[in-house]
Amino acid sequence: MTVKITIDCMGGDHGPSVTVPAAISFVRSHPDAELVLVGLEGPIRAQLKRAKVVDAREIAALTVVPASEVVEMDDSIEVALRKKKDSSMRVALNLVKEGRAQCCISAGNTGALMAVSRYVLKTLPGIERPALATVMPNRKGYSTVLDLGANVDCEPQHLLQFAEMGHALVSAVDGNERPTIGLLNIGEEAIKGNEVIKRAGELLRASTLNFYGNVEGNDIYKGTTDVVVCDGFVGNVALKASEGLAQMLIEMIKEEFSRSWMTKLMAVLAWPVLARVKHRVDYRRYSGAALLGLRGLVIKCHGSGDAYAFEWAIKRGYDAVKNGVQARLTQAMEENAAPLAHSDPSLSDASAGTSGPHIAFATVSSKA
Amino acid sequence: MTVKITIDCMGGDHGPSVTVPAAISFVRSHPDAELVLVGLEGPIRAQLKRAKVVDAREIAALTVVPASEVVEMDDSIEVALRKKKDSSMRVALNLVKEGRAQCCISAGNTGALMAVSRYVLKTLPGIERPALATVMPNRKGYSTVLDLGANVDCEPQHLLQFAEMGHALVSAVDGNERPTIGLLNIGEEAIKGNEVIKRAGELLRASTLNFYGNVEGNDIYKGTTDVVVCDGFVGNVALKASEGLAQMLIEMIKEEFSRSWMTKLMAVLAWPVLARVKHRVDYRRYSGAALLGLRGLVIKCHGSGDAYAFEWAIKRGYDAVKNGVQARLTQAMEENAAPLAHSDPSLSDASAGTSGPHIAFATVSSKA
Repeated sequence: MTVKITIDCMGGDHGPSVTVPAAISFVRSHPDAELVLVGLEGPIRAQLKRAKVVDAREIAALTVVPASEVVEMDDSIEVALRKKKDSSMRVALNLVKEGRAQCCISAGNTGALMAVSRYVLKTLPGIERPALATVMPNRKGYSTVLDLGANVDCEPQHLLQFAEMGHALVSAVDGNERPTIGLLNIGEEAIKGNEVIKRAGELLRASTLNFYGNVEGNDIYKGTTDVVVCDGFVGNVALKASEGLAQMLIEMIKEEFSRSWMTKLMAVLAWPVLARVKHRVDYRRYSGAALLGLRGLVIKCHGSGDAYAFEWAIKRGYDAVKNGVQARLTQAMEENAAPLAHSDPSLSDASAGTSGPHIAFATVSSKA
Repeated sequence: MTVKITIDCMGGDHGPSVTVPAAISFVRSHPDAELVLVGLEGPIRAQLKRAKVVDAREIAALTVVPASEVVEMDDSIEVALRKKKDSSMRVALNLVKEGRAQCCISAGNTGALMAVSRYVLKTLPGIERPALATVMPNRKGYSTVLDLGANVDCEPQHLLQFAEMGHALVSAVDGNERPTIGLLNIGEEAIKGNEVIKRAGELLRASTLNFYGNVEGNDIYKGTTDVVVCDGFVGNVALKASEGLAQMLIEMIKEEFSRSWMTKLMAVLAWPVLARVKHRVDYRRYSGAALLGLRGLVIKCHGSGDAYAFEWAIKRGYDAVKNGVQARLTQAMEENAAPLAHSDPSLSDASAGTSGPHIAFATVSSKA
């Protein structure tokens, strides 16, 4: 099966100088991939020329589709949505909408990408708000965390939907049929947290998902659960605080190793080991957050990412297509839109019996 | 001046086996400190005996005050508050309330400590909710972050109060009269974030504080501002995610250095350098979160902290007393309770002119 992906070549801080080399490198290592390069034709062709692509298959695997406008990193959602109808972002998404590609990759402005994706592709049944999901390294492998900033004010049912989407994503990509779901909170006990979290916990306990319970910030890195669900504000702060800490530690290690010729020598000796640690936690390898809940696959790459990071984002989209993530998500949402939260009344009763008093929700009505 | 501090010896996962050795070590290095050891007399005296304290001054500097009950780590707030009236936590706080000590240190259950402190000491004028503040290492030194979990649902005026308390704390301890204040958000622009954050930003812009603007998770470690303000849910997740990441990195480094005799040799060689990095970010040195906004100083140590961490928490309380933090906080709150948020109407107008439309708040009424 050929995997066809559209690339918004103009998105991100660096545009075609990053996106085009990443695309070329990607088709070289993935013979079954076809990439559609969308954006200003001049700069894209200049990059292609510069990379001297001569292999006939590689040339055939890279199509250019022109788009005359660019959504800038600081453009408002309104500008992206209403003024720039021929933006590379919009055209790339339209190709997915029209079924001419299976996935779109963009490093553009997150708010604009979310809004344009939602406008062009529409949401899946049962999904009120798409979420941004990414993988973060942990001691055992990686955790899938969502939402990371698409939704700053969430209601309990949104957190439940994020859990359903996380479940569908992980079960499709990792072949883990019952991934464990953790609800990010400030303590393990069910009584912890704010009202939204407590109610989301109740909904999750009553669902058919493999709900582990509350998890705390450090559980992301312990790998306590396969999926960690949180609102976009908390998820974004946790992700960025982690990036900031990792960056600070790398700089401190560099600083300490550059103090004298002696420490510099040690750095040379220890480098192979430190490089392996660095590789294991290199955030560029975890690049590519999936916009989940749309009628089409969209992967968002970090705006400041380099070609290596962008190539990993393409890889994430490619894997998602290969694993049938979209069909899985669609199926899960269609099946679960209504019943997941309140499928089995006996289960709901059982959990009420073991985990303290349950609150009745207007959103939970038994249809069994 | 003698600094007199009460120690809740029974708090934390380890109780007197950690708190008493920490107290002994502390009085050894601080000749002007007097510590009151509160808790079950038997276990405390056993630890004192074990440590063989013989120096007359050290003996004089360590008083034991018995308390017959212990607030367990999983006790509910109700139990701590209503059932255990002779707990070590409560007795230690009572001594502060009665003016017999200037500060109380406890590694006990956070919720119980906050509730009992609030009940015994009461809040400062103008403070609706006390906050938990700690310092986190950054590239330049450290940032003071609050709240870290005492308040999970905050209104904009609570975030303003946290900023006022952070200002008072940092200006007293660091002698920095105009510490910069950052509001933790998911983007730098004033339009980012949820409604509470946007309104808190407006209040901060209209205050006389040195408000820098929004900061993101990574700014904590960049050291962009001296103080970072957030609600307790977000602060707690950011802190714990950071701890989890640091822990994972340390384990990965250990793992990579133990792969073969070659890497083990490298570890021996690189150890002095890595130990310096470890020392710089050792979370035990940042142990001791201040409960701010009470009519008395209370420092909370991590429940799982060892004697080294607990000694750092005592040090933080000692420094706070030495720097007159409590008087500073009281003065700031008395002066600012009303006017800080809306001191200078012209300033408020000026900021309205430069940073977009302002919203009128019910909580902000001009008293100028």
